This record gives sequence, C-alpha cells and structure tokens, in this order.
Amino acid sequence: MILTKKDYIGYQGVPGAYSEEALITFFGENNKTIRYDNFEDVIKSVLSEEIKYGILPIENSSTGAITSVYDLHKIYDVYIVGEQMIKINHNLLGTKNSSISDVAEIYSHPQGFEQSSKFLKSHPDWKQIAYFNTAMSASLVNDNQNKSFAAIASKRAAKIFNLEILAENINNDSTNTTRFIIIGKHLEKDDEFNKISLLLRISNEVGSLYGVIKRLASQNINMLKIESRPIEGIPWEYDFFIDIDGNLKDEQLCHSLSNLEKSAHQIKILGNYKKGQSL
Amino acid sequence: MILTKKDYIGYQGVPGAYSEEALITFFGENNKTIRYDNFEDVIKSVLSEEIKYGILPIENSSTGAITSVYDLHKIYDVYIVGEQMIKINHNLLGTKNSSISDVAEIYSHPQGFEQSSKFLKSHPDWKQIAYFNTAMSASLVNDNQNKSFAAIASKRAAKIFNLEILAENINNDSTNTTRFIIIGKHLEKDDEFNKISLLLRISNEVGSLYGVIKRLASQNINMLKIESRPIEGIPWEYDFFIDIDGNLKDEQLCHSLSNLEKSAHQIKILGNYKKGQSL
Repeated sequence: MILTKKDYIGYQGVPGAYSEEALITFFGENNKTIRYDNFEDVIKSVLSEEIKYGILPIENSSTGAITSVYDLHKIYDVYIVGEQMIKINHNLLGTKNSSISDVAEIYSHPQGFEQSSKFLKSHPDWKQIAYFNTAMSASLVNDNQNKSFAAIASKRAAKIFNLEILAENINNDSTNTTRFIIIGKHLEKDDEFNKISLLLRISNEVGSLYGVIKRLASQNINMLKIESRPIEGIPWEYDFFIDIDGNLKDEQLCHSLSNLEKSAHQIKILGNYKKGQSL
Repeated sequence: MILTKKDYIGYQGVPGAYSEEALITFFGENNKTIRYDNFEDVIKSVLSEEIKYGILPIENSSTGAITSVYDLHKIYDVYIVGEQMIKINHNLLGTKNSSISDVAEIYSHPQGFEQSSKFLKSHPDWKQIAYFNTAMSASLVNDNQNKSFAAIASKRAAKIFNLEILAENINNDSTNTTRFIIIGKHLEKDDEFNKISLLLRISNEVGSLYGVIKRLASQNINMLKIESRPIEGIPWEYDFFIDIDGNLKDEQLCHSLSNLEKSAHQIKILGNYKKGQSL
C-alpha cells in the first residue's frame, strides 16, 4: 500500500466518528482526509479517484455484519486492501451542565441503540431517533443546545463536540469491537497479506454450497467467516461472502480458487490483505 | 398443531402489523389473539403458557435476517412449529387530506426505511424516526393528526388507522416477502413436516464448519440456509443457524443429526415444521 503526500483518504461520518478513529489508527495522524455522508459516497470517490483509499465498517463483534456495506460490494468493483479493528465504547452524551434526568430524546446510529440495548431498557420513555452515525448525533446535540437531547457516541466525540458524559461505557458487551475494511480501486498483492475475501453466488442445486466448501476444505483452505445475504428480486436465494486464509501470490491457491468456479455460479475476489490484529 | 377454543396466539405489534396479517393467514380469522410490544415478550408468553403459539418475523427477502429474532433463540428454549410467508408492500401514509408535499417527519420500523431506501433517496429532507413497527407508526400518525407526519406501513394499516395513501408500493423490490416463524413451547412432530432448523456452535478449529457441512452433505441432507451470528463476548466467533430438509420421525436423519455433535461443539434442534409456501 503506497500513499503519497498528494493522496486523500475518505471515511463516512464527521470528525469523532469511530470510522475516523479507525482511519487514524491504520494510516497514522498526518494524512489528508475527506469525510462523506454515507458509505456509498466513500466507494464512489475511490472509483473516481477523488480519494486513494476509503475506510468502511464491515462487522461488529456484538451485532454482526453491517449488511449495507456487504451489499455495496455487489454493486461496485472496489477491492479490500486492509483491515483494522477498533474497540467501541459507547457513552451517553448531553449538553454541558445537563444531567441524565433531563434526557427525553436520544440520537445515534441504529447499531448504537442495539449495542446499548440493556442500558436503554431502563429508560423506555426516551424517544430513540436513528441518525447517520454516532459522531453526527453528538454534533446535533451540540448544535441544538437542548438539555432534553442526548447522543450515544464515543468519548472522543464528547471532547470534539464539547459535551458532558452522562453515562459511561453503556454498551452491553465490554469486548465490543468493530472491524473496518480499507478499500481501494485496485486489487493489491503483497507478501505480507494473509486473508482473502470472496463473493460467491452459488447455483440453486442441492448441495451446491457444500460443493464449494468441500473444495475449499479439500485443498486445505481455511474458511474464517461466512455471511449470507439475500439476492434482491430472487426470494430465498443468497450470495455468500466468504473470508479465507491465503495470499494471492500463492499459485496453488489461485489454482484452487479458479477450481471453485466449477462449483459456484459466480466468484469474485473482493481483495487480499493483511489480517487486522484482534483487540 | 392442535389449537382449542381456549388457546391464545400472540404477535408483536398492533392490529394492522404484517405480523398480525401473517397470524391470520396461518391460523385463520377467528382466533383469540394477544398483541405484545416486542419480540421477547411474545417468546416469554409462550414459555409461561399465556399463549399457545406466537408468531415472529425471521427473515426478509430483500434485507435479510431479522437478527434480533435469531439471537433470542440463543436465550430462550422455544421451538419453531410452523412457517408463513407474507408479501410486504410498503406505502407512505399521511393524515386524511394531507399530501406528499406536507411531509417532514416519517415513522417506520428500521426495515421499513431500509426496504424503501430508493424512494426515500428522493426525499433527503425528511427526518426518519425509527419506531417499534410499521403499524404502530401508522397509529402514531393517526393519533397526532399532524400533516407533516407520515408512516411507512401496509395498506391494511391505512384502512385500520384511517390514513391517506400518499405513495403506493414504495418498496425497492416488488418481490419483497417476509418469512415468519410460528413458535411453541414444545417440539412438535408430524408426518407432514419437511424442514428442520438447527443452531450450531462450532469449535474454533481449522475446518470445523466444513466438518459439519461435510457430514450434512455426505448423509444427503440438503442445507437450505445458513446464517452466522456473533457470539457475545467472544469477538469473531460465530453461532450458525442452519435450515435443512427433513422430518424428525425419520430415524436415519436423527442418527445423522446426533453424529453432527461429533463435529460441532453444541447442537440444538430449534424445530421441525412444514415449509411455508413461497409467494
């Protein structure tokens, strides 16, 4: 992965978003960044070369796949070139000098609510409003300066948007981690890479998913993860996103993957990259 | 499945919800029903025998798994005893004599927004507020009688809550269907049943998911669907919800399933039932 001084990197959200934190952790502090309102715009900007790389959340360790990001891989031909895990600790943030008893309306990304559901059960009277992301929710609370508004977001967002932490670490699961992917316009290869992501659309015949997995296993390919997503317009048929161990410089592995096409309808290599470190 | 005159059936939502429609389609019109505010309460009431059966949405053909319902199967020991598909056609509903230009704030279940995302892209100024379900959103719009409020819900909800249809069939996918499961307190067996749902927690060793699928296939068990869900507190490990063809009265199949335990850490039979008819 080569980044020159003129290259931009993009993320979804605003400063203080977990995505921006993932970007800084992966690429370091001193890079030129562009923020976007949604995931699709990050991908489009990679394809138009406005940015060299983009960063997107793909999976949370408590709530599972970020399905809209998986589904965008079916539409756009971008490649996964890296992976970064980020610990997610949610907090309830209100305006300065407010207290938890003032809160009536809370803003967050839907996953912010879902990941804090146990805490929120004690406050059934609060109106939950789904917003673009956690940091934009914090920004909105700061903009409104209304004591009845609160956001579920990071401590970093509290600092950036000058908010009070009304309740700390309200996420259900203290091991709560989000896996981010780094996307680029081109497939990258490097001796260091050890993980490959694939998209398989499998024929509807009996045992065909088995056929693919059998080929993977019989060639000693280790499957790390399988995620099924519906095929739009064809109820109860699925695309499979499969992550495996491997490096595309390994000729035998490439041969095995081309063999996979014999049992799968369509196979698309989504990327080869270095596995992110588990936290 | 035996239902006597004293038995109640439960669903989540209010009259006019797609869940109520699924209940009526599966059990017929003249049954005693109880509505609940959330999925968990339906399950708890099945276990406490307040209701004989409950009905829950498990999967949508466009947006995929209803993950919170999958996850409740890890906590509560209820069984799946039936399946019902319902066509989902969303509509934008406002108060009587309102028009689409009045709309500023829209209410729906998050999946209502997701499944209507293409239509909603033309109205980026509308504030989207996630609410318990589509029919309760329609009820809220009726209660408020505010022309700037609208709901995404069914035509049946428009009728029940005396609302105007401001835009018809706004769902992205015209084949949009939701699969509902009927849950009961006991595992049921019947000669008619042809589908089995399983929950597998698989050991973290290389190739172990393959091991399970290989056993399924080598015994001519057809896998219909696989859904992975994170295990809370153990980042990047998964439970697998697998649907297969079969009847538990088939002794050979039961033997094969008990063999599965050799390759899976834990196996739980979630139910045996008759496959719902695809629409």
